[in-house]
Amino acid sequence: MSVSEQGRRARTAAETLAVTTRTAKDATLHAMADALVARTPEILAANAADLAAGRDAGLSAAVLDRLALDEKRVAGIADALRQMAALPDPVGEVVRGSTLPNGLELRQIRVPFGVVGVIYEGRPNVTVDAAGICLKAGNAALLRGSSSAAHSNAALVTVLRDAIDGAGLPADAVQLVDASSRDSVKELMRARGLVDVLIPRGGASLIRTVVEESTVPVIETGVGNCHVYVDAAADVSMAVAITLNAKTQRLSTCNTAESLLVHADVADAFLPAMLAAFAEAGVTVHGDARVAAYSDAVVAATDEDFGTEYLAADISAAVVDSLDAAVAHIRRYGSGHTEAIVTDSQAAAREFVARVDSAAVMVNASTRFTDGGEFGFGAEIGISTQKLHARGPMGLPELTSTKYVVTGTGHLRP
Amino acid sequence: MSVSEQGRRARTAAETLAVTTRTAKDATLHAMADALVARTPEILAANAADLAAGRDAGLSAAVLDRLALDEKRVAGIADALRQMAALPDPVGEVVRGSTLPNGLELRQIRVPFGVVGVIYEGRPNVTVDAAGICLKAGNAALLRGSSSAAHSNAALVTVLRDAIDGAGLPADAVQLVDASSRDSVKELMRARGLVDVLIPRGGASLIRTVVEESTVPVIETGVGNCHVYVDAAADVSMAVAITLNAKTQRLSTCNTAESLLVHADVADAFLPAMLAAFAEAGVTVHGDARVAAYSDAVVAATDEDFGTEYLAADISAAVVDSLDAAVAHIRRYGSGHTEAIVTDSQAAAREFVARVDSAAVMVNASTRFTDGGEFGFGAEIGISTQKLHARGPMGLPELTSTKYVVTGTGHLRP
Repeated sequence: MSVSEQGRRARTAAETLAVTTRTAKDATLHAMADALVARTPEILAANAADLAAGRDAGLSAAVLDRLALDEKRVAGIADALRQMAALPDPVGEVVRGSTLPNGLELRQIRVPFGVVGVIYEGRPNVTVDAAGICLKAGNAALLRGSSSAAHSNAALVTVLRDAIDGAGLPADAVQLVDASSRDSVKELMRARGLVDVLIPRGGASLIRTVVEESTVPVIETGVGNCHVYVDAAADVSMAVAITLNAKTQRLSTCNTAESLLVHADVADAFLPAMLAAFAEAGVTVHGDARVAAYSDAVVAATDEDFGTEYLAADISAAVVDSLDAAVAHIRRYGSGHTEAIVTDSQAAAREFVARVDSAAVMVNASTRFTDGGEFGFGAEIGISTQKLHARGPMGLPELTSTKYVVTGTGHLRP
Repeated sequence: MSVSEQGRRARTAAETLAVTTRTAKDATLHAMADALVARTPEILAANAADLAAGRDAGLSAAVLDRLALDEKRVAGIADALRQMAALPDPVGEVVRGSTLPNGLELRQIRVPFGVVGVIYEGRPNVTVDAAGICLKAGNAALLRGSSSAAHSNAALVTVLRDAIDGAGLPADAVQLVDASSRDSVKELMRARGLVDVLIPRGGASLIRTVVEESTVPVIETGVGNCHVYVDAAADVSMAVAITLNAKTQRLSTCNTAESLLVHADVADAFLPAMLAAFAEAGVTVHGDARVAAYSDAVVAATDEDFGTEYLAADISAAVVDSLDAAVAHIRRYGSGHTEAIVTDSQAAAREFVARVDSAAVMVNASTRFTDGGEFGFGAEIGISTQKLHARGPMGLPELTSTKYVVTGTGHLRP
């Protein structure tokens, strides 16, 4: 089926979803979860086919592990749907309302987008998560996963569609877009009028392509060249702990710290301890000359290092002479995802927060907290690094639009 | 100066504007207003040059009138700036906030976009309005007006920049982009990273071009094929009054009604009176056969008529057999701007509101109320017909993004 035909079907399904009650949506999410558990064997069989193909194609053990499903992982995916059912329904929320001087009643009400396209790589759990969060917010989902997970995704979507149909909602609320060619991505990007918003999740090059070529509105996600700035007034042991956590708690996430800036006044107290901690953790430091002065293990940083999202046991590092210089450095090299300051100074924290133009700014906390789960959103479809519509972790409200409803008694404009 | 050089200057100015207090911004708006009044003679001299060129180019009397400034109009433009100064500052508003279970303090705070590009046609007052609303929301503005207003816009921006500079803010908060070639529009559309959002205001073809070609995020504005649906349960005289007001109160605006749908059950009672009122008002009705049955003056409607935004004394009209059919018609032909229902039925109103997917839905009120001023926003930069970020009239909050600020005491992610 062509993507535009899928888009038309999604649009029809969305018309129903937009007027479906929370009770019906939540019951459907539970039915989807139950079906995943009940039909785990067919899902695992499909997953085995992907894994076999992946081994033949020489995928790395890490990639194969991310792709692999087992009974416990399927149960976890199903549980995530049940948790979504427990979240409040964003649809129908009155965002603002007033009675105008002429007596007109003005209400701005949250409504679903309609059709949401998600383009993603890797793990099959994203298929179910995205389907669930879209449905909870009243949207139909067009899911374009990775070809390496094609069998798993097909099995998962078959199970979900059967469950949705069984619960009395339109199966076309969730559709899988053909992952066997690049053309389907192009068609999604050109489906203006059928798809209301496109969310690319994945590597920097996928996101860049979608942002540049799509005529459908896009929410850009995920690239994070995150900084930790250790201020002159930092508590040194807190700074070491936060930087280490931000870099090493998990290496491959977009909120992992990739660059360390150290105020010159605290460098003597901080850098020896920090560099020792990094050495012990197996992190390679790519430092400027002032950082390198503290350890022979520091590799000389190039300009490119400061702009790199390593997603690995590497970090760039520089000594700066002021908070101003730190802000300027972040403006030049940052990706606007998450930056942290470690400081005991209220003035420094306030200035850093005001002047750093990122989706999230942390004061005395690890960059790793920028996350829908950590923020208490209950579900997350990605982390927006753009300024339009949504910025930072996107939960259910970010998957909605609004509509003005104006009620009068025969009001005419004078 | 190239657009990208202007973009860099705007970005630098935006860094200052983002941390400028409301007091300073409001004082600047007043200084801008005072300067416009004080320097009215040089503005009018520039405007005279545009008018002379326009007459030579054979512009219509209506277009020349829209272009023309006089002392009173300049005073009105200045007053609009003073009214903006009186509006609350959207920047710094805490949109949501909570203390997370681990003690982290989470705040989502409104921040300026940074650099806003506005592409517009026609009237010179838009230059000042857009500059003012952008500045109030903490953004630098890149303004690309029409070449027919080039002298007027240049004079206005010179006065505004001098006033901004005199008030101690960066003059580059407001810059005029060269209107003499199409290239400057292209450059604006490609200035990703320098321009945060682009707002095209004007005709359908300009908006379509920007939406399709821009890599800078766009907020689509303004095309309105607005419908009035007269329900079976409508009060007939209210329906005639609302339809007439929606069509004729002003012909050339995006919230003017362009299409009338009449429930078959009320057609006998409603259409004769309506068609008589339209005839008296000089409105040509392009109707389907069922409408034409009521009057020889009705012109046969083509399929194209139902999709047309006339912006003139014309309206398309059809009789429908149900609210369902009205909703389906609107889905097919509407532009998602504003639709109105006239009905005494609570059930019909509720269903129409829920199922019509438009920026604004009116119940027993004229479509002409979809307007930032009418909604009480105090200032408006356009009416968004897209679902991402802003939908409907855009006031000051719609010219901002948000930022998460997370404050801890050395919090590490476990």
